[in-house]
Amino acid sequence: MRTNRIETLCDGIFAIVMTLLVLNLSVPVVTDEAELFNKLLAMWPKFLAYVISFVVLGVIWSFHHRLLDVVRKSDGWFLWMNICFFMVVAFVPFTTELISEYRHWSAAIVIYGINSVAGFVLLYCQCWYASAGGRLVEKCIEAKSIRELKAIFAGGALASIVAIAFSFVNTNISIFIFAVVYAAFVVFVVMRGTFNARDAQADTKQDG
Amino acid sequence: MRTNRIETLCDGIFAIVMTLLVLNLSVPVVTDEAELFNKLLAMWPKFLAYVISFVVLGVIWSFHHRLLDVVRKSDGWFLWMNICFFMVVAFVPFTTELISEYRHWSAAIVIYGINSVAGFVLLYCQCWYASAGGRLVEKCIEAKSIRELKAIFAGGALASIVAIAFSFVNTNISIFIFAVVYAAFVVFVVMRGTFNARDAQADTKQDG
Amino acid sequence: MRTNRIETLCDGIFAIVMTLLVLNLSVPVVTDEAELFNKLLAMWPKFLAYVISFVVLGVIWSFHHRLLDVVRKSDGWFLWMNICFFMVVAFVPFTTELISEYRHWSAAIVIYGINSVAGFVLLYCQCWYASAGGRLVEKCIEAKSIRELKAIFAGGALASIVAIAFSFVNTNISIFIFAVVYAAFVVFVVMRGTFNARDAQADTKQDG
Amino acid sequence: MRTNRIETLCDGIFAIVMTLLVLNLSVPVVTDEAELFNKLLAMWPKFLAYVISFVVLGVIWSFHHRLLDVVRKSDGWFLWMNICFFMVVAFVPFTTELISEYRHWSAAIVIYGINSVAGFVLLYCQCWYASAGGRLVEKCIEAKSIRELKAIFAGGALASIVAIAFSFVNTNISIFIFAVVYAAFVVFVVMRGTFNARDAQADTKQDG
Repeated sequence: MRTNRIETLCDGIFAIVMTLLVLNLSVPVVTDEAELFNKLLAMWPKFLAYVISFVVLGVIWSFHHRLLDVVRKSDGWFLWMNICFFMVVAFVPFTTELISEYRHWSAAIVIYGINSVAGFVLLYCQCWYASAGGRLVEKCIEAKSIRELKAIFAGGALASIVAIAFSFVNTNISIFIFAVVYAAFVVFVVMRGTFNARDAQADTKQDG
Repeated sequence: MRTNRIETLCDGIFAIVMTLLVLNLSVPVVTDEAELFNKLLAMWPKFLAYVISFVVLGVIWSFHHRLLDVVRKSDGWFLWMNICFFMVVAFVPFTTELISEYRHWSAAIVIYGINSVAGFVLLYCQCWYASAGGRLVEKCIEAKSIRELKAIFAGGALASIVAIAFSFVNTNISIFIFAVVYAAFVVFVVMRGTFNARDAQADTKQDG
Repeated sequence: MRTNRIETLCDGIFAIVMTLLVLNLSVPVVTDEAELFNKLLAMWPKFLAYVISFVVLGVIWSFHHRLLDVVRKSDGWFLWMNICFFMVVAFVPFTTELISEYRHWSAAIVIYGINSVAGFVLLYCQCWYASAGGRLVEKCIEAKSIRELKAIFAGGALASIVAIAFSFVNTNISIFIFAVVYAAFVVFVVMRGTFNARDAQADTKQDG
Repeated sequence: MRTNRIETLCDGIFAIVMTLLVLNLSVPVVTDEAELFNKLLAMWPKFLAYVISFVVLGVIWSFHHRLLDVVRKSDGWFLWMNICFFMVVAFVPFTTELISEYRHWSAAIVIYGINSVAGFVLLYCQCWYASAGGRLVEKCIEAKSIRELKAIFAGGALASIVAIAFSFVNTNISIFIFAVVYAAFVVFVVMRGTFNARDAQADTKQDG
């Protein structure tokens, strides 16, 4: 099985999920300009949730993109790990809205954290399953790149667990941990967005 | 006609339909943490409907994916079987929500069952039409793989009819039948996710 | 410019528009089984609108698919004809719901008819623009196939105009005309779903 | 990294965002034909917002399409510029609805203008980043084409800033500026929809 249909389904799901919180934004009905301004200001948790959700989904999409770039083919297990992964991803806007409205309560942090852990664990499993014994990956891919991806996913899952634990002490610490982790991930994706092996191949294909 | 546009349309429709029940989930408006917890708990039938719907659609998508993997080209009949199939697929979230809320009433089971039968019959027709006389399939595909797919789709349709019949006796038996069938299908997809012929071809293409 | 991105955008838009009326279907909240049955029955105009909309969009998608199959490349004019076409297509669920609820009033028929005329005129323009002087089409395509497509689109537009005119006499005649036209189109798409030239090419590519 | 997944995600997001305002259109519930007519007429700001939004998104999609046509590969920075760009694009229906309902108030114009500026600045950054030192673009692309695209994006951003400034004097001037700019862009996209280099290449590929 080729991976192209998983990619199309994946991009379709991310496109919908990324724009999901926009569906919540509706133009306020007002009678004067000051009221419009105030009502728009009052919508800030929705705007914030939208931006956070978009960035988090952007990070996850980039990592999944990066992973599938080195996966040469798919099989039944890999397919189902992806379907489970998409199920978890589609919850991100819900849990993001939850945390952006109730960030002082550990219930919101715990649910957000579980969603985050589930996502990273499924990414780790995909990475491990695809690369173990070179099962589904490109032959030319360096072991170092795979180890790097695995470390990121394990790190994300661990940080989320720590954030969940701190939510019972102080929810601000939890939010700080999530913020640092995602900021670090954005920096990582920006700085090293690509594997060299496939990249070189892509160049050759398009030039040749 | 190539099948690539049917695949893109299919993946788009599955992406939307899979995330359809997520659109129903909205963060509850509450004033204290205990209330938030209770309101989230009270949403469990929606969460359950979402998970069931995602798994069922994941199974159907995998089988359709598997089928189109061996279909080399399309024609008018095949196109329309697919459009009818998509129409049936888009009903899955509705009937799933129906069954998850009213599982003790045979009306819900019957409607869910009809949806299920229609889906499997359309998949069977696609499979039969594409493979009869090697009309649309890869030349190198083994007859055994096609027979296997046909048996699965016929089995799914029959099991759904049996479940509908039992709904007038005891709806729990019907639900048990659906659960067993879909669990068996998930296992099948996971264990044998791919046809060997195309797979080998795909390998050759990507390596060569 | 290649046409592949127009195709992806097109399939995405059709996928959303096809599932748009499903978004309107929500499971009724009831207290006993008879009420559930009655409320589901009372939803029949919504179910009907969904089926009509899906079939109509399926026909239009098939024709557009058929057209783009012979279009080898795109340019600025063709791109904008497509964007205007998508704008018209996205109105189909709205006008279909309108006609399924208010089919005895000429206002609903007129709006539905205008939407239909606009769609066929834009398809005709795309077809004419792409084929005039062999501007954007495959060199090997037969003039007969293009003439056939043009005749279909002109026929659809004319029939819609006639249906609009009859709406002021008797709206049932208008609905009968629309039904006959779309039934004829479904038959046409099913019987002759493909151009021979590209088909042969596609076969060669995938076999070779 | 190849750009094909950015393209699929992009087309998915544009497909959703383009059809977003259609989701707002619902068939009015009425009891006589005159009321239907009046209620449909009263929906004109929604129809207008839909058309404006579709045209504006069509222009932006065309430019992005045009840009990615000459971008041969992607990297981490380019990926994130795109994700930020999609985030801005998904706001267009919201700000368009805002301006179509409250076009006499500078608050609506300012928000619309900021959205517009952000979009053009991100397109300019993508263009500059991809082309600087031939980082990500086709080798055969002419410097003139890139300069042209950069001039358009800079022009769009500047015109939007001017329109924001005029909104404090007279909002009609601002709206006139936006209208002229987008009309000019539509004309530009229609007249010169493609780069010659890639076009020639695409022709060769599909003919060969």
